[in-house]
This record gives sequence, C-alpha cells and structure tokens, in this order.
Amino acid sequence: MSKHIVVFQPDGACVEVDSGTTILEAASAAGVSIDSACGGQGTCGKCKVLLALGRPGGSPGDRLSREEIEQGFLLACQATVEDDLVVEIPLESQRGEFQILMGQGQLDDDMIQAGIPLAERIGLELEAPQPGGRGGDDERLLSALRRLRADSFQDFAIDLGALRALPQTARDQDWKLDLLLADVDGRATVFGVEPAGSAESYGLAVDVGTTTVVVHLIDLHTAGFLDACASLNDQAAYGADVISRIIYTQEHKQGLAELREAVLNTINRCLAEVAGNHGIRAEQIIAAACVGNTVMTHLLLGIDPAAIRRDPYVPAVRSLPTLRAGEIGLAINPAAPVYLASCVSSYVGGDITAGVLATGMAESPRLTLFIDLGTNGEMVIGHEDWLMCCSCSAGPAFEGSGLEYGMYATIGAMERVAYHPDADEVEYTTIGDGKPRGICGSGLVDVLATLLRAGVIDRAGRINLGLPTPRVRVRNERPEFVLLWGEEVGRADDISLGEDEIQNLMRSKSAVFAGAEVLLDSLGLNALNVERILVAGAFGNYLDAENALLIGLLPDVPLERIRFVGNSAVAGARLALLGQEARQRVAELSRRMTNFELSVLPGYMDRYVAGLFLPHTDLSLFPSVAKKLELKP
Amino acid sequence: MSKHIVVFQPDGACVEVDSGTTILEAASAAGVSIDSACGGQGTCGKCKVLLALGRPGGSPGDRLSREEIEQGFLLACQATVEDDLVVEIPLESQRGEFQILMGQGQLDDDMIQAGIPLAERIGLELEAPQPGGRGGDDERLLSALRRLRADSFQDFAIDLGALRALPQTARDQDWKLDLLLADVDGRATVFGVEPAGSAESYGLAVDVGTTTVVVHLIDLHTAGFLDACASLNDQAAYGADVISRIIYTQEHKQGLAELREAVLNTINRCLAEVAGNHGIRAEQIIAAACVGNTVMTHLLLGIDPAAIRRDPYVPAVRSLPTLRAGEIGLAINPAAPVYLASCVSSYVGGDITAGVLATGMAESPRLTLFIDLGTNGEMVIGHEDWLMCCSCSAGPAFEGSGLEYGMYATIGAMERVAYHPDADEVEYTTIGDGKPRGICGSGLVDVLATLLRAGVIDRAGRINLGLPTPRVRVRNERPEFVLLWGEEVGRADDISLGEDEIQNLMRSKSAVFAGAEVLLDSLGLNALNVERILVAGAFGNYLDAENALLIGLLPDVPLERIRFVGNSAVAGARLALLGQEARQRVAELSRRMTNFELSVLPGYMDRYVAGLFLPHTDLSLFPSVAKKLELKP
Repeated sequence: MSKHIVVFQPDGACVEVDSGTTILEAASAAGVSIDSACGGQGTCGKCKVLLALGRPGGSPGDRLSREEIEQGFLLACQATVEDDLVVEIPLESQRGEFQILMGQGQLDDDMIQAGIPLAERIGLELEAPQPGGRGGDDERLLSALRRLRADSFQDFAIDLGALRALPQTARDQDWKLDLLLADVDGRATVFGVEPAGSAESYGLAVDVGTTTVVVHLIDLHTAGFLDACASLNDQAAYGADVISRIIYTQEHKQGLAELREAVLNTINRCLAEVAGNHGIRAEQIIAAACVGNTVMTHLLLGIDPAAIRRDPYVPAVRSLPTLRAGEIGLAINPAAPVYLASCVSSYVGGDITAGVLATGMAESPRLTLFIDLGTNGEMVIGHEDWLMCCSCSAGPAFEGSGLEYGMYATIGAMERVAYHPDADEVEYTTIGDGKPRGICGSGLVDVLATLLRAGVIDRAGRINLGLPTPRVRVRNERPEFVLLWGEEVGRADDISLGEDEIQNLMRSKSAVFAGAEVLLDSLGLNALNVERILVAGAFGNYLDAENALLIGLLPDVPLERIRFVGNSAVAGARLALLGQEARQRVAELSRRMTNFELSVLPGYMDRYVAGLFLPHTDLSLFPSVAKKLELKP
Repeated sequence: MSKHIVVFQPDGACVEVDSGTTILEAASAAGVSIDSACGGQGTCGKCKVLLALGRPGGSPGDRLSREEIEQGFLLACQATVEDDLVVEIPLESQRGEFQILMGQGQLDDDMIQAGIPLAERIGLELEAPQPGGRGGDDERLLSALRRLRADSFQDFAIDLGALRALPQTARDQDWKLDLLLADVDGRATVFGVEPAGSAESYGLAVDVGTTTVVVHLIDLHTAGFLDACASLNDQAAYGADVISRIIYTQEHKQGLAELREAVLNTINRCLAEVAGNHGIRAEQIIAAACVGNTVMTHLLLGIDPAAIRRDPYVPAVRSLPTLRAGEIGLAINPAAPVYLASCVSSYVGGDITAGVLATGMAESPRLTLFIDLGTNGEMVIGHEDWLMCCSCSAGPAFEGSGLEYGMYATIGAMERVAYHPDADEVEYTTIGDGKPRGICGSGLVDVLATLLRAGVIDRAGRINLGLPTPRVRVRNERPEFVLLWGEEVGRADDISLGEDEIQNLMRSKSAVFAGAEVLLDSLGLNALNVERILVAGAFGNYLDAENALLIGLLPDVPLERIRFVGNSAVAGARLALLGQEARQRVAELSRRMTNFELSVLPGYMDRYVAGLFLPHTDLSLFPSVAKKLELKP
C-alpha cells in the first residue's frame, strides 16, 4: 500500500498516510480538527475543505453544489488520499481548537448541543396520585425527573419555592408541568414549577469587563444567540482600572457596596434592554453565566478585593459555587442559577479561563499564544500539555475608553479605517453600516497603521503638522488628525484622533507586546516558535492582523498565524451557560494554568519603554514590518 | 462448661449462656441493650445493673459505691454468670431501643456524641498566603477543612455570605477562624466565618404541634439540653385541628400566609424566650431541627396542604431538602440550616418518624406499639423487620386544650392527682412544685381514674351529683368536680373538671384505643402479642400506666410492658439536630413505614363508640381493669 503526504493549510500541519485514507482521517492523524457533525457519513456537509494541490480519490460528496465542486471544495470524509495533497480548511470547517467565529459569539453547534445547560426548562408529566398512595407530589416529581435525567445527574433536589408552587400548579395543569431545572454544582435542582408550555426560557452570557460590560441573550431552547448589549461599566466613575477601584473600596466605608451596585446596575440595564427588545420578562431568564477578571468577580459579589493589591497578592476567592440571581442582585428569575467562571490568580480571571476554553487551545497540540486585550491585557501561552499566563496593565484605550471619539464596538463604530493621502480621503466602514459615531478598537489599530504608513505620524506617534491637509490641525492646543468631517454625515463636530490619544494607544500596545516578549523569553521561546496567535478583546468584529503587526501590538509572525477571535470571554461564558463539561473544564483550567507575575520577571519595564515606538525601538524584533515600511532594522 | 439461664427485667428476656460469660455479653445474646460507653472495660460505670436473684461471679466493678454494692448493684461488664440469675436493668442503663428518658429529652450520650451535627462551629487555622502563591483564601479554607472533615464529607462548599466575611476576618484574626459548618444534604457547607473563639453555638429542636409548639435549646458544643419553652400554637385561633386549618387556607385568600405566620410567630417567640433566658443572641443559634405532623410541616413552609384532604389524600411534600432559616422565616442565624423530618403520609408526619427514631423501636427485635397522643393520636406497631402506622383524630383534650383548667405540662401544672373520698381530699403534685395553675395530661388521666375508682363518676363519665361532698357541684348549669379549692392556694377561683370535659377526654381516649384495636386486629394480633407499649405525647413528665389502663386509654397488657417516653418528637428532633445518621434514619423510616388509613379499616367507628365508656363497653377487652374495679366482664 502506497503512502502519501497531506499538508493542511492554513496551519501547515503534515501527515503521511496510507492511500485510501479519507482526508478526514488524515486530518485527525495530523492533529487537525475538522468539523463533522454526522461522524463521517457524508450527510452533514460540515467537513467541507478546499483542495489546493493534488488529485484526491473518492467522491467530493453529495452535499456540495456544482459551483463548490468546480471551485475545488470536497467533503473531507468522502474524499480519499491517493496522491500527495495540500488541503485548505475554511474557517467554518475548523473546530475544537478554535471554537469562536467572530462577532457575536457564534459557537460550534455540536459543542453546545451536547451539554447539560446551567438551567433548562423541561416538560414533565407526573403520575397522578393513586388511591391508597401516600407518596408526596415531591416524590412523584423527583421520580419522573430521575427517569428523564438519570444519565446526567445522580443527585436531585427541589427548592422551597418550587415545592410551594408544586401542589396547586400540578393539579391545575392535570400533572403536566414545566420544571425549571438547574445544575447546582452537580446536583439537579428544581427551582421552578410552571404550567407546561407557558413560556420560553432564556439565559445570559455576561462578560463583566473593567470598562465594558457585555450581555448576550441566549435562547436556552435552541442554544441560539438572540441579542447583545454592551455598556460602559458604571464603575468607571470610580476609577479607570481595577487598582483604583480596589483603592476606592478601601478608602470609602460603603465603597464595596457602591461598586457592587454600580456593576449590578450596568448588567441589569443591559439585560433589561436585550430582554425588552424581545418582549421577554425577567422571570423567563432562568440562568446567567458571568465571567470577569478577578477584581470584577469580587466586586460583583461584594467580596472584599483588598488582598489582591497587598503582598502576597492573592485573591479572596478563586472559584465560586453556583449562586442564585436573588442573592447576587441580578434582575432575572431570582431563583435562577448564576455561574461565575473560576479565576487563575489575582490578575488572571474568569474571563481568561472562559476565553481559553472558547479558543480550544487547551486541547490543541499546537503552541498557541492567546492575547485578550481589554482594560488589562492578559496572555496565555501553551498547548494541551501546559499553559502559562500573565497579565499587564494595558488600559482601556483600545476599548475606546478615554478617547474623545473612542467607543465600544457597537452600531455606528468606525471599525475599518484607511487614509489615502493622495486623495486626502479616509475610507471607512461602520458596524451595522450605521452613521459614524466614533471609532472602536479595530478602527483605532487601523488608524495608527494607516497614519504611520502615510507619514502623518512618525514612529514616535507625533503628528506631522507640516502636511498639506486640513485634516492635520491643532485644536484646543492639541495636535490632531481629522478622520471624518462632520458635515459629510451631518454631524455638528468632526471625528478626530489627538496626538495624546495616539500616545495613549501606544502605551497600551507596548504594555501588551512587552508582556508577550517577556513571557516568551522566560520560557526560552521566540515569536517564531509560536504556531498561532489568537487575539481576543473588545476590538469589534474584526481586527486587521497586518495593521496590528505594523503598530507593534503583536509579535512579528507570519500573518496567517494570527487570528482574531472576538470577545472570547463572552463566548466562553456562553459555553459555560450551555454545557456542564464546559463548566468543569473552566474549573480545571483555573487550576491548571501556571501564573507568571510580570512584575517579578526581569526587563518588563525596559521593554515596555522600548515599545513606545511604532512598531518598536528595536526593529530587529519586527523584520517584516521594517521591510514593509522600508525601514532599516 | 456448665450453662445457666439469665433473665433480664423489666422485660423478661431470657438467655442460656456458658458459665463465665459476662452479664453484658449475656444481655447482648438476649437481645437486651445495656449502655456501655467504655466497651466493657469496667471504667465508665454505665452498665450498672441490679441483681435480683442468683449469685454472680467476677467482681461488681470498681466504679460502684459501697452503698450501691450493698444494694445489689454490679457492673454488667465485670460480673459473670456462674449461676441462674435474674438481673434488673435500671432505666438509666438501658439504651438503643429506648433512647428517651422522661422530661426534657435527655438522650443517650453516646448516640449524640457519635454524630455529625446539622451545624457546628469549628475552629480552623488557615495557611497564610505564600509569596508567589496564587490560591484564593477560599481554597486554603477548603483544604484546611477537608483535612479536618474528610472522614465525614466528600463534598465541600462555601456560601456567598461566608465568602464575603472571609478575607477581612481571616486577616484581622491572623488566619485563625471559627467556621459555621452545615451538613446540607450531605454537602459540608460553610455558612459563616467568624473570629476564633468569639462565641458559643446553639441549636434548636422544635416540635411543631397542632396545639402546642415545643422548642428545646441545645448547646451544640456539649450536645447538652439547656432550656425548653412550650407555647400554644398561635394557629389554634384558626381551628383546633389540622382539617379546620386546611379549610381556613382554602377559604381565605391569605389563609396559607396567615397560618404560616402564626406558627412562625409561635416558634420565634419560644426561641426568643429560651435564648433570652441564657443571654444568647439569635445569630448564635446556628441550626434547627423541626418535626411536625404533615399538615404542620406544610403550613410552616407555606406549602399548600389542600391535597391532604382531597381524594386520594396525598401530601404535597413528604421529604424536604435542608433549608435555611432565612428562607423559612425562623428568627435565628439566617444562613443556619433547618432540617425538617420527613413524613410518612398525609396523617403520619415527621413528628412520628422522629419519635420512632428516638424510641429505637425500629432497631428492636421486640414487637412494640408506639402511641403518640397529641392533637392527633398516631400509632406505630412493629419491630426491626416491619413497621405499620396509622393516625386517628384524638383532639387536643389531653394536651389540656379546650378544658377550662387544662394546661400544657409546664410549671404549675397538676401532674399527679389522687382523690381520697374518705378524707374528701385531693392529693396532687405540680410540675416544678409551683403553685397550681391547672391540670396537664398526666393529671387528667389520674383524675379520670381516681374519680372512677371513688365512684364520683360512673363508667359513662357522668358525675354522681348525689355524693355528700361540696367538690361535686353544678356551676353554670354544668356538673363539675372541684379538684382544688382556690382558697387553699390563694387563688380567686377553684380548679375543677366539668362533666362535658370528662366526655371530651373520653372521646380522645376512645379514638386512640379504637385505633390501636383496629390496627392490631388488621394484623391478626391481640394486645397480649405486644411486648411493649411506648406512650409518647404531651402528658408531661410522667404518666401513670395503671391509670391509663383503668380509663381504657391503652390496651390491657401487663403494666410492666407500658412505658411513658415523654415528648418523643422533640427528642427525635434533637437526635436529628445532633447526628447525620439520625437524619438519614428518619428519611429511611419515612419510606419504610407502611401506612394504614383507619377510615378504610373495618369497624373503627363502631369500636370508637364502644370505647366511650370507662374503661370500655366491652369489659372482656380489659380483664385486669374489670378485676381491679370488681366489675363483671
């Protein structure tokens, strides 16, 4: 039997297999995950790949259109290896190690469907009580429930509230009920008894960010995404970063209570908005999975975070039991279970454990660097065998915070921006094609890169005021560049970016880059050892990898190794909302990840200062960028 | 080796053993339980027995006083069988199948000490966080707790409230803490974090009776009884029996809430009194074990009991999860666990399962009839292999309710009463030797018996108005007998019992006796098959078995087979408060006991009517009483 080599792109993984092996089997042997819902039957069409080189055997599969077949697509489970092949795996066919698509947390359907959700609404018909029977309604409910869920749970309980509702509801409804069932740390707990079929059920995936709170509304019945709302965290009024918030709690008697209320108000406002959009009542929201950094987790629960900034810098709490909405203050069904993702350390929180879960990097053989840029920049490096993480203070600039025209990535945010100096025109797109209201993170990366390329700013981020364009101007003693003339879109003011704001963004990107550099160094690695860089955060729906490299935000690796994974935290929250396995894996990740304190690693500050250039003071770290900008390394 | 017979009194159990066997071993072989804390080492002195006949070997043991030895006492573990013996086991040396002493629920110390209490306050020193450590305070707490309680629990959790208290308290106290730890359905749950050694901890054993609520205050540290309070259940204003209470909940919109509040107020008033007596704050009471009949259990929790009186007469709830004081409304530490004993059926409740536990009859080989006479009369018959139970409506007369001078068994209640017609004197003792305030259950039994013996009342309970004593009189058109002249004790009024009240008591006793009769009949048994009758209830500290037989309250068995066990319900509640095994056994009992509906058994009403005589219409059922009263059967 002859052997052939198969190369999988874009990752370049290679494997030698016997002829006759399916491409799906070859991928598996190469450690490359391809989606396949039907288990290789050729019926689901999910394992679609693109043939780049070579002549496969088998058939392309019935599920493809003629057009797809002409373009070279085939089903990996149907096509066989009869030749050396190069196969490209489209994004939508990848799975496992890369769960997230961009945007609003669309996740692999199989992964979601398989799980035991944090809460569910299930229909159940109780046996009617028999003459001579003595069993309580509670027991008949539990025995019916056990029959239904014996494969998921061993331990069952009924809340007092549900017990109170049970006798009347059961008799009114002729023993046909809907139960609200929660997974409370492995115990199946009935927390509601309602008439059968009376209403749908919904859950929330919540990313509790220092600067921005993001709430996703999920239909628990279909596991589908319904709506999202993002809002500035009301806590921002108490300090921009977690340290100033901690200080506030220490210096004000009611500080902890105030901050708790602020973030609760923010979440409750967001959830009221998404619920209102869909005509959903608060009681119909029966579960919430929240992820946040360690300080946000403490503040949301009213747990004193003071120890986090006191030697030896440990959190009060790393892992939380399943709580109830009522005891926290979430304005949903008060008995609804609330999950909080476990943290790794004082500065690597549940948003990161959940994010790592969502990327699948912890199950991948490939060395991956995961960077989540929010108000803090957290980094995780590793693969299936080990994971290291650290955190650096990036500040909220790339979330749009602290910039006059910065904004969170939502409707009307300029998300792609390019300046064409010859025509003196700025080309842009906005999220939702709305009227431009400001610039979000991805747009800010683009702006820095395009202004650097056009020579509007120099490598130190200073605006060249001598340029012959009215876009370069001084307003209120501040040099700035006008991205959009207000009159073009009927705005009273122009949308601009000031030199001080550019400096602010450069400090952010340098903090992140220096963190990655020091982390790699301490492991004896360099950027080129990294097989994949996954970038998460509040940039928006998109991040231009070339521009991110150009400004020195990310280590200089071949572009195809960089992938933007959107808000991985909220995606992880959604997975935790929908699956027991995901919740268990987050808990494992919090124990498994090794934490580095950047502050104790040598050279961080030096490297941070050296990074306050575009792309960097040391061009030898950015050879491809130097080449592109025709700079001498 | 020669053989000898040993007879154990008062039960008459016999066994043949080899000479040289200890009396303790012989007792074990005879199925008789003798207390022995030291395991037969001769050091604890608990296995003290009285030699009635025969000549034992071995030594009487070092732990006995010369006086005790002269009286014939010896330690069963030290004395050996060298002769045929008759040995009497004093009440205090019995154990296992007979846990309760009279009065305020004194229980076998070993049984109490062995258990895992519902809640406890335990001292714990946490590891201080280490430089470079990242583990949360929560994890260091849990790992210290696991080391301490690994043999009791597999599953550990911390409540949100405790997590909130943890970081500050731990640092203020240099990591030395007291934890409040609850057994929440098998999961060890930290519900409080306090400075080490700051306060004691207490628990409540609560008997939620239809007519009377009894609250015992228990020191959880020593497992010792501290105080008790009994109060008329405020629900009595809504109807004397459970049926009228259920009807109230159905006919009034807020009825269920009102009744819940009434019983809560009663319990809270009682616990405030006992706590106040000992200078204990509500927060220091960290656990409560409540037992009540099925309707009381529903009403206390605000669960609709309507189904109980609707065909097919099933309860909404038979078994309850461990709840928290706050969610129920008990005015103790709001996070404190509250245990509720599981019920058997709509009319045999948690007071009975707990009571059976406390009597130990479920582990005894001896056929036992257990009668708990409260507002309902419940009966359980059986032994270690089977248990049957039923309930009859006795009414609260023997609790003193509905009688002008009836009262609950508390200070000042006339508990023993005897009328001497020759001197026209009534001899009595009161509980606590207090000034007489009324008559409690045991006194009422005595009164009926002594008046019958003296010919003051006839067998139909009618007062003989022709007697030449001023104690017999008509007041407000009611024939009555004066038990106590007010002037004798400085009262404005006399304490008397009216003919109508005597009829009321006779209805109660007849309901109980008819129940026992029908239950025995349906099992093909007669009274003499019953090896032991245990009588529980609100009679007081004492019940005169002979008088109870005389009035026909109990089946006519040899007197020594009858034992009064006091308030077995509250004793069972105390066991459940103090031991996990007790809680598990109550749950098992609720499933194990077979429920008879008296209403479906033939002849109950006929027998009830036949029982409205003293002792009974059918004297063949009471041969010993007939002989004593010189009546012709």
